[in-house]
Parts: sequence; C-alpha cells; structure tokens
Amino acid sequence: MTSALSPSAPAIILVEPQLGENIGAAARAMANFGLRELRLVAPRDGWPNEAARASAALAVEIVDGARLYPDLATAVADLHYIVATTARSRFLAKPVLAPDTAVTEIAERQVADLRCGVLFGKERTGLENSDVAIADAIMTAPVDPAFASLNLAQSVLLFAYEWRKLVNPHSLGRTLPDAPLGAGHRFKASRPAERGELIGFYEHLEGELDHCGFLFPPEKRETMVNNIRTMFARMAPTEQEVRTLRGMVAILRRGPWQGSNKA
Amino acid sequence: MTSALSPSAPAIILVEPQLGENIGAAARAMANFGLRELRLVAPRDGWPNEAARASAALAVEIVDGARLYPDLATAVADLHYIVATTARSRFLAKPVLAPDTAVTEIAERQVADLRCGVLFGKERTGLENSDVAIADAIMTAPVDPAFASLNLAQSVLLFAYEWRKLVNPHSLGRTLPDAPLGAGHRFKASRPAERGELIGFYEHLEGELDHCGFLFPPEKRETMVNNIRTMFARMAPTEQEVRTLRGMVAILRRGPWQGSNKA
Repeated sequence: MTSALSPSAPAIILVEPQLGENIGAAARAMANFGLRELRLVAPRDGWPNEAARASAALAVEIVDGARLYPDLATAVADLHYIVATTARSRFLAKPVLAPDTAVTEIAERQVADLRCGVLFGKERTGLENSDVAIADAIMTAPVDPAFASLNLAQSVLLFAYEWRKLVNPHSLGRTLPDAPLGAGHRFKASRPAERGELIGFYEHLEGELDHCGFLFPPEKRETMVNNIRTMFARMAPTEQEVRTLRGMVAILRRGPWQGSNKA
Repeated sequence: MTSALSPSAPAIILVEPQLGENIGAAARAMANFGLRELRLVAPRDGWPNEAARASAALAVEIVDGARLYPDLATAVADLHYIVATTARSRFLAKPVLAPDTAVTEIAERQVADLRCGVLFGKERTGLENSDVAIADAIMTAPVDPAFASLNLAQSVLLFAYEWRKLVNPHSLGRTLPDAPLGAGHRFKASRPAERGELIGFYEHLEGELDHCGFLFPPEKRETMVNNIRTMFARMAPTEQEVRTLRGMVAILRRGPWQGSNKA
C-alpha cells in the first residue's frame, strides 16, 4: 500500500560555504529538482555575493531569497528534523542514511507539517563534528570509497534528485510507505521539539554538568558534548519531553525539597 | 541494491499468557514459519502445562524448549531491541510499525548479532502500558478497525509469516535494504545496551527522582515513569552511553566536588 502525498520541500542549509560560485551551483542543483528554500550560515565571503548570483543563472531567485544566519544553531532553531551530509564516517552514533532513505524520512515528517533541513558543510573539509552532533541522522551517498570526490553542488544535486523522484508523480517516483495508522502518523501523534528548544536543553544540561565538573578534562569537553547531544538527538524528544528533561535536570541538582542534599 | 542475509530469528515472548491451548497454538504458528525461541513470562496456569504440550502438536519441541521467567524485566534482560505487539494506539511516543516493517527492523539488528524479541500480551487485554514502555517500537497489524479481532496465535502467525517472507530465499521474499555502509552497519558501529542495563539505569534515575520528589503525585507516578522510559528507549543508548547517563545523574545529584550544593 502506498499513499499519495505532496510534502512541502525541506530547507537546504549550506554551513560556512566558501566560494560564491559554489553557492550558485548549489542553487541551480536545487532548482533542477524543485527545491526552493536556501539557508546560508556565515558564508566566508559575506552576503550578498555577486559571484553566487552570476553562477546561479536562472536559479538567481533562490540565491536572492536565501536567508542568512550567523551560526548553525540560529539557522536550525525552527526545524524539527535535521540530516547532516558527510562523506566519511563520524563515529557519532546516529542513523546513517542513503539519499533515497533520507528523502523518505524527510517526506514523512514534512507531510506531518514538521520542518526539515539538510546540512552541507564547507568545500573540502565538510561539516564540523559539532555541526553533525545536532543532527538527527547522517546522509552519505554510496560512492566508491576508492574514488569519492563529490563536490558541494553535486551533493546537493543527489539529494534534490532523490527528493524529486519521491514527490513528483510524473517521474519514475517512489511513494511513501503506508504506516499502519497512515503516512506521517508517528509524527502527527508526537511532534518533536523545535531544534532551538532542544539546543536550549543541551545548554542547560551542559551548564549544570560543567558546574559539577563532569565535562572534564577540558581537552575532552567538546567530544563529550558532541556525544551527549548525539544521544538526545536520537531520542528526538517532543516539546513536553524537553520540559520533562529540563525538570529532571533541575530537580536532580536541587535535591529533595526538605532535608539534606546528600545523595 | 540488496544484500543476501541469514539473520538468526528473534525470540517470541508471551507475557502472562492464560490458556495453555493458546501457548501451544502460538508455538505452532512459530513452527510454521521457522521461529524456534519461545519465552514465557509468568503463565497464569503455571509451567509446564500439559494443555500447551497437547495443543502444540508437532511444535511440542518449541513448548518443551520454552524458557520461563518470573517477570518481563528478567525475560528481556539480554535483548537489544524489543517490539511490543498492540491492537490499539497507546499514547506512548514510540515508532508504530506494520509487521513487514517490524521484521526488517529486527533482521537488520539480528544480522549485526543484536538479540531481538517480540512481546505479545495476555489474551483479550494485551500488554500493560508498563510492558510497552520498555519496548523500542510498537507493532500493529493493519486490521480493519471496524473488525479487529486477532487472537494471540494469529498475532504471532502474522509476525512469523512476515519474518519468513524476509529471510527465506525460496519464498516471494523481500531482502533487506542496503545501507550506505552495508546492512547492519549502523548497529555494528554502535551496539545498543542490553535491556537489563537500560532497566538498571531507569531504576537508578527513578530512585533519584523519587528521592527528590519529582515523580509526584503518586497517582501519576506510573504514567510519568512509562513516559520517561519511553523517551530513553527511543534514545537506544549503547553500553557506554548508559554509563554516561548514570554518571550524569550521579554527578547532578552530587553537585560540585567542593563548594555548596545549592543549585
């Protein structure tokens, strides 16, 4: 069984892109397959960027409509599900998805009115581990490991192509698998929190853990923080669950209302 | 792309089954499709049970080989992934899987040498919410809601049939989807903790939350505990991550090593 669906498209998020030409090429790749929403995190050469506009050609509307953010946390604050594109394994315990699986995961959420985004890192070095840590899943194209050299726009293109295959009824298209209770049900029943709320919880928890001396020694702090964020990203808590998590952290720190604070 | 796989089979776990005849019928359903491992949690009429043996017919070896457990926590302590069969929605925030999806989720783990189990509740009333809370996912057959009346053995049969379709190369069989890094990779890269370790963490956390007065008022305690366990089941932490979680709870309770315990 399959369902007819017209999910809205996810946001393409370029994290610290370097060359304007590559931003324009990514916009063209998006336009080819019907993606429209471009977000830019701290592009190296500033914004607006004439090279990006020139390179975009007929996709210049996407470049002109791109939204600019000072950092990744701000760029994803309103999103519910985030996929991070990486070329290599990251030793972060997240689902690793092929592009065709990633578009299905995203479409199931978009039809439930959850907002999704796909992160692409800067040319050559890609995303930082701290960027990947806030994502729900990793997307890796099944390239030959002996010859893996996708550039930024090609990575965007593969994703956009798979998205189009899924949502365009005139293509060879797949359709979304029908869940027992209807497509998108599992997300309609329990909306994940927006990523900004989740990052707020991370900062609360990490502040308390810093205060208690848990994130120690300093040279391991970043790895510990990335691993903790990865765990809770897998949990994908709802807004109510984020409040519960914050409540638990607060009350564990406070201890019993009356009486001693000894554990 | 697909992968040739021969995953070992998951355990079928009957929670507080009532009639021996139904236990025998469940064993026959298992045997039809190549499942062998039966676990029984506190069967109402005791064990061994002659009615179960008689009803099992040629599947009597499964009945005779069944392992008996006093409670669910003991029955699932060595497992890594647990699916709970329910007829109706439970308002617990877990993935809801159709049987064909459930067998794929299980097979991907079994090929990575993770042990899986499927819970079936007692006749008529099914699983308790507290049983469902420790599972990773819910399995619901796509029955007509106007005429939903699967009995225990029929539920086991549907699951066993889908399992057979997936793993038997001579059937119409599906095959497991190929992950970018190979089938089972995501579980090989990070083994979830055994359920016994996870339940140990739950009890540690809940003990501290009780001590601090968080699980209050008493009439809401069970629901709160089920919701918290459901969140962390979704996280599916590894053994190392369970240790990290326990460490965080302990240090949040203890507070800074030197100085006041005020939050």
